[in-house]
Amino acid sequence: MKRKGRRKRRETHEPTRPAAIRRPRLARIPMKPWIVLVLAAVSIRAETGYDVWLRYARLDAPPQIPAVIVSAGDSALIESARAEAIRGFRSMTGRTLRIESGLPTENALVLGTLDNLRQAMPQLALSANLAPDAYWLKTVVAGGVRYTVVTGADDRGVLYGTFALLRRLGTAAPIAPLDEKLTPYAPIRWINQWDNLDGSIERGYGGRSIFWENGHARADRKRVSDYGRMLASLGINATTIDNVNADKRLLSDDFIPQVARIAEAFRPWGVRVAVSVDFGSPQSLGGLDTFDPLDSRVAAWWKARADALYAAVPDLAGFVLKADSEGRVGPSAYNRSHADAANVVARALRPHNGLLLYRGFVYDHHADWTNLKNDRARAAYDNFKPLDGKFDDNVVIQIKNGPIDFQVREPVSPLFSALEKTNTAMELQVAQEYMGQARHLVFLAPQWKEPLGYVLRQKPVRGFVGVTNVGLDDNWLGNHLSQANLYAFGRLAWNPALTSESIIEEWTRLTFGNDPKVVTTVDAMQLKSWRTYEDYTGPLGLQTLTDIVGNHYGVAVEASENNGWGQWHRADAQGVGMDRTVATGTGYIGQYPPAVARIFENLATCPDDLLLFLHHVPYTYVLHSGKTVIQSLYDSHYDGAKTAAGYPAEWASLKGRIDDERYSAVLAQLQYQAGQAQVWRDAVVNWFLKESKIPDAKGRAGNYPGRTEAEAMTLDGYQAIDVKPWEAASGGKAVSCPAAKCNATMRYDGAPGWYRLQVQYFDLNVGASRFRVYVNGQAVDEWTASDHTLVRNSKIDASSSARRTIEGIALRKGDEIRIQGIPDGGETAALDYMEILQ
Amino acid sequence: MKRKGRRKRRETHEPTRPAAIRRPRLARIPMKPWIVLVLAAVSIRAETGYDVWLRYARLDAPPQIPAVIVSAGDSALIESARAEAIRGFRSMTGRTLRIESGLPTENALVLGTLDNLRQAMPQLALSANLAPDAYWLKTVVAGGVRYTVVTGADDRGVLYGTFALLRRLGTAAPIAPLDEKLTPYAPIRWINQWDNLDGSIERGYGGRSIFWENGHARADRKRVSDYGRMLASLGINATTIDNVNADKRLLSDDFIPQVARIAEAFRPWGVRVAVSVDFGSPQSLGGLDTFDPLDSRVAAWWKARADALYAAVPDLAGFVLKADSEGRVGPSAYNRSHADAANVVARALRPHNGLLLYRGFVYDHHADWTNLKNDRARAAYDNFKPLDGKFDDNVVIQIKNGPIDFQVREPVSPLFSALEKTNTAMELQVAQEYMGQARHLVFLAPQWKEPLGYVLRQKPVRGFVGVTNVGLDDNWLGNHLSQANLYAFGRLAWNPALTSESIIEEWTRLTFGNDPKVVTTVDAMQLKSWRTYEDYTGPLGLQTLTDIVGNHYGVAVEASENNGWGQWHRADAQGVGMDRTVATGTGYIGQYPPAVARIFENLATCPDDLLLFLHHVPYTYVLHSGKTVIQSLYDSHYDGAKTAAGYPAEWASLKGRIDDERYSAVLAQLQYQAGQAQVWRDAVVNWFLKESKIPDAKGRAGNYPGRTEAEAMTLDGYQAIDVKPWEAASGGKAVSCPAAKCNATMRYDGAPGWYRLQVQYFDLNVGASRFRVYVNGQAVDEWTASDHTLVRNSKIDASSSARRTIEGIALRKGDEIRIQGIPDGGETAALDYMEILQ
Repeated sequence: MKRKGRRKRRETHEPTRPAAIRRPRLARIPMKPWIVLVLAAVSIRAETGYDVWLRYARLDAPPQIPAVIVSAGDSALIESARAEAIRGFRSMTGRTLRIESGLPTENALVLGTLDNLRQAMPQLALSANLAPDAYWLKTVVAGGVRYTVVTGADDRGVLYGTFALLRRLGTAAPIAPLDEKLTPYAPIRWINQWDNLDGSIERGYGGRSIFWENGHARADRKRVSDYGRMLASLGINATTIDNVNADKRLLSDDFIPQVARIAEAFRPWGVRVAVSVDFGSPQSLGGLDTFDPLDSRVAAWWKARADALYAAVPDLAGFVLKADSEGRVGPSAYNRSHADAANVVARALRPHNGLLLYRGFVYDHHADWTNLKNDRARAAYDNFKPLDGKFDDNVVIQIKNGPIDFQVREPVSPLFSALEKTNTAMELQVAQEYMGQARHLVFLAPQWKEPLGYVLRQKPVRGFVGVTNVGLDDNWLGNHLSQANLYAFGRLAWNPALTSESIIEEWTRLTFGNDPKVVTTVDAMQLKSWRTYEDYTGPLGLQTLTDIVGNHYGVAVEASENNGWGQWHRADAQGVGMDRTVATGTGYIGQYPPAVARIFENLATCPDDLLLFLHHVPYTYVLHSGKTVIQSLYDSHYDGAKTAAGYPAEWASLKGRIDDERYSAVLAQLQYQAGQAQVWRDAVVNWFLKESKIPDAKGRAGNYPGRTEAEAMTLDGYQAIDVKPWEAASGGKAVSCPAAKCNATMRYDGAPGWYRLQVQYFDLNVGASRFRVYVNGQAVDEWTASDHTLVRNSKIDASSSARRTIEGIALRKGDEIRIQGIPDGGETAALDYMEILQ
Repeated sequence: MKRKGRRKRRETHEPTRPAAIRRPRLARIPMKPWIVLVLAAVSIRAETGYDVWLRYARLDAPPQIPAVIVSAGDSALIESARAEAIRGFRSMTGRTLRIESGLPTENALVLGTLDNLRQAMPQLALSANLAPDAYWLKTVVAGGVRYTVVTGADDRGVLYGTFALLRRLGTAAPIAPLDEKLTPYAPIRWINQWDNLDGSIERGYGGRSIFWENGHARADRKRVSDYGRMLASLGINATTIDNVNADKRLLSDDFIPQVARIAEAFRPWGVRVAVSVDFGSPQSLGGLDTFDPLDSRVAAWWKARADALYAAVPDLAGFVLKADSEGRVGPSAYNRSHADAANVVARALRPHNGLLLYRGFVYDHHADWTNLKNDRARAAYDNFKPLDGKFDDNVVIQIKNGPIDFQVREPVSPLFSALEKTNTAMELQVAQEYMGQARHLVFLAPQWKEPLGYVLRQKPVRGFVGVTNVGLDDNWLGNHLSQANLYAFGRLAWNPALTSESIIEEWTRLTFGNDPKVVTTVDAMQLKSWRTYEDYTGPLGLQTLTDIVGNHYGVAVEASENNGWGQWHRADAQGVGMDRTVATGTGYIGQYPPAVARIFENLATCPDDLLLFLHHVPYTYVLHSGKTVIQSLYDSHYDGAKTAAGYPAEWASLKGRIDDERYSAVLAQLQYQAGQAQVWRDAVVNWFLKESKIPDAKGRAGNYPGRTEAEAMTLDGYQAIDVKPWEAASGGKAVSCPAAKCNATMRYDGAPGWYRLQVQYFDLNVGASRFRVYVNGQAVDEWTASDHTLVRNSKIDASSSARRTIEGIALRKGDEIRIQGIPDGGETAALDYMEILQ
């Protein structure tokens, strides 16, 4: 990191210092190419979403700002902080801060660690106790000059403080006078990326890997660096770069230099790299005949690999390890404990101050469904509680927020309070695996606040890990509004006490601007989005009623039943819910501290939202809300789908207040979501109607005014097929075209008027069928089924179900309406139904 | 044009008609692929400008519309009209009109010629006298049902009426009750496209040819068809498809089928094709030893070619011919007259009812500059007046609006009133050849209104020809705002009495929507744009002071002098202007009718705006405005440049009210224009200051606060060069970099503060130089000189002069400002000056 062209220091008037006092080197003029690139990036603004909450859009009324920036210290992080400050101020105010050195005699922005500033600029008289990574924004007036000081105990603190100052500027908060000293809640603020070395990402919904392609690291590391900047802006200090279902090759000699290059791209942003490792590696990669954690050759192998990795990446954050779960090998192969497994790896990391994050997500996915005492929710506690206190200091058990798997609602994992002598971290999922996969608007902060509140009250954790899985999509996460989840994760990892409301307010202002109408509207949509999604996917603690053995996306009510995966809800003709009580059930509730267990165990105190997760009750059971379980299920699904149906209009009220590019993209996504919400509604409601045989008191379930099933139309070429699961299609059937072209025709029999036609069809990603709609032979619409769901939807089911809305069709009694489908590839232009609505 | 799948007619209840009365065939259900394509086009709206004023944006508050459309007659034009009505209503109101046949029993839109409607739907009781191409929009209430009738004497009239109805809808004008009967002013409403067969376009600023590429017709004729639709929407009924400087090959056997295919694409829109021909063709193409118009073999050759062309294109509109001008051969080769030339060609067209448009733009471009009696402005009159009455009936003399060549201001051509027994048409230029070439906002309707007013008062013309030169650019004309010129041409060709204000109001509403703030702002900018451009390019009748022997774009005050081209303004140390008086000058004024000539001849009545076109006066001559000529020149240029400098802010007030795509494109163009206006201002003002030696009373000319010439900076690698013409660069000099990288450095010596830096550099289209600006070594901006002027600017002169504005730079006394240039290709990163402004 040698530099040329240093400017002569302005030291002539300064007193000579004793050589023993090492004067921190003051900032010098940057001549690096990337500084110049940053300038270029500012001048062109395409609103692709790439810039996330770091858009630094020009403020309508920028505050007065100083003209000068100085920094003490010249580490890469301080340079990043200074460049970011210049970039942010320039972009938001149109003014470029002057880089100077020494304490200026005019108002200035001053960056540096507390130690460096105290030595280099004693006139500022700074004094504070600052924890690692903490920052302090402080307005100091000295000699009639006002200094806006951004300092911290360390370089990271200065960088975080810089982002905090820019966040204030961007949200139109005052930037003077300031005295804001903020310390992160915990040291572990990590991301997990589930990226495979071939470039795919497990549960990634924002494109291919930014790290890997075709089995090696991508040559272009700009995305890595920009991701580092995003993470730094939130105070996140480490990330894994490979799937937790790890590839042994990552620890091979071939890969270590590649990891080092990725780490280098992250380093200027204070983000350290961690790697996921495979527990079988000593054997599969190392060539030993064992991976027994108690075998000394295995220990030596782990040590040698750690040493090699740290030689290339001295600041590696550590390893993440998933063992004995979902097919991953683990210590059980040798009858060893998770503590044995964790410790042998942790001891290899110990000399390098590395951490081992050992996943608590361990369960048997071949459980016997017929045994009512079996319970996957118990697994983490059952596995780890007996080992409490047996883990080394640098082991952290990484526990998912809930006992199952990122469901739309779960109670907090009882393991957090159970492990009293073991480090823990909470794993939250930013990628919306069971939460609409970035095709549904679901803001997760309100969901996360529940387990966070628990750990804040019960027992502190050592930090937070967010499973994020950003990819090469322009907007990183596959959906502009989903970016709020990464933002919220970072903000909560820094301070779990922040409210969802304050977080989304910041995010919306930074992402879409300070227009009050935009802020109010987007905030409101985001804040209600989790409840809305829960309402139409799995309320009352049912969990996300999705295809849990498939893509985890579309509705499939029974997918969780009758198999060993243990995500059971045990709905039958009489009732629904998992009995997890101590008294009559699996005993899971007993894993909580008594005060909590009492509330859950007793139906009188158990919250409605968790009822069916914890208890099995008849459909006629009356909730605290006063509704029966079955009526509440019906109502929730209709309410949720109705709210989702209103999203497009809410968003459309912002036209002209948001750039067209993101406006259009989000509008299309919300329109799609509105259609999917109806699919969910109908599937779940019909399933429970069929199972319970209890009608909807409001008469909606099973009654669809204006709907004509495709299989009930006059078919020319189309053939009726059974859809599996049956609830994924209206009437359990669809029509599919085995020919080059098919038609489904009906005759309109209602009152004359203007109508909206809604065609429910299946948009698989194995072709691009064409559809045309004719009224009395007149073409009134056509479209291509172009796989816009972006999920693995190669089947005719709820995941591929899509809707085309055709507005403004005049119908008269006797009109012939014909839908023509032209299959393409493996996609058979399948249709579910058409609705004629006013 | 056979069709399949006809629906059964609803004729069962109609009385039997005598076979002798040919019942017009009623419209049937369209099954053609292009109807379906239109549907698809509506559903995707990228605001590239491709859709021009036919965007049909959704109305905020659509009026009540009928549900049904019926049409009588089934010609391609009627089908176009019906499809267009459906497309427009659908797009603007979200409702799809039902195609029915026969007179419906509910409110309906009814299309058809008057004859057809009277026969097919006598209940409508329609009765009117309609001229060819005229239309009538009429609300008819019959049997309690309201019919919105769109009719005309012929199919074209119905199509034009349909567009008129859609125009009403789009501009939020009432669509009922209607009784609007409009007749075009004249039958010739033509476009000339100056497209070369290699795909280039002479004076085209909107991309390559939509007709030709590499010497043959383009295979893709979608653009042709869409251009036909644009033209039809304005009532334009013919267009040439090849350069008026014609290529003989167009009349060859190879090309006739290609012309036919282009004509086929235009035909459904009622636009007929015409071709430009080369007078030497009988010899050069036909192999005769002569092209003497009085030679019978020549006459036979023209007849044979016309017959061949008409066999392939029976509705060809005719020929356009430019002879004996600017190097084109003509009848003078055989001492024959223009009448001889015109008539021999016209007689070949006569059997096919074709027209010959014979250009009046005939002059000697080798005139003796030293002869003060020589005058190119006289040429058209001198050439054609003696031949008045000698042209055949199907010859039309196509006369440019002014006597010179599409200058920023000229008096009307005296030939219009002089030709009393000869057909004339007025040629106007939509392509902004001398008018900023679609890089400057110049709305031409106000300019055109002056000659149009003259012909309306003096002697009617047979029509109008607009030289348009659209190309393959997404927005057709190279600039979104320039589309208004084509719109205005078409509207004025239909009705020259329309006001500029009413035309631009329509255009803005259709192009950018009915938001009152948008309409007010865009209208105001357009309406003042001609005067603004005139102010900074060539006021007082000086004409556009551009490089008339080069690209006709950038400023070059003396380019028109001292050569044979005759665009002289005869400025010298004492005075300026062409003396065209009868008394002392060229006698040009005498070509006008006496009442007009009197006004022009007398200084006391000659308008200031035309003064220097008609008179030579001393710089100290006092205008009607009360200013001296020289002060008026100074003031105009400063006023014009100031208005242009304000355009970006005016436009920026519309952010969020216009789609981002067009908003950004236009903003960039206006920012560029603001910079060019300053270049014009300084060049013209400095030239006249140097020539007249009379200082600017306001002290501006020659004084540029904050400006530092590049040649006055400390140069590292850069070399000072003389720029030609000298006024194209500040101080007559630039600096150019002959090395890989050069620097020009200055030291700031002013008060501390926030400043705006404006770097004037040269952006040639032979490379893409990089520039960086450093303050005290800190990079504050960088950009690439990427040829955005789009004109032929391969020289360091005013055409390539460009400006980079760097906002928000804090400067302190003693600061070093360095501009670094990195040449590329043949572009030498040349710099003119930098201004430091507050």
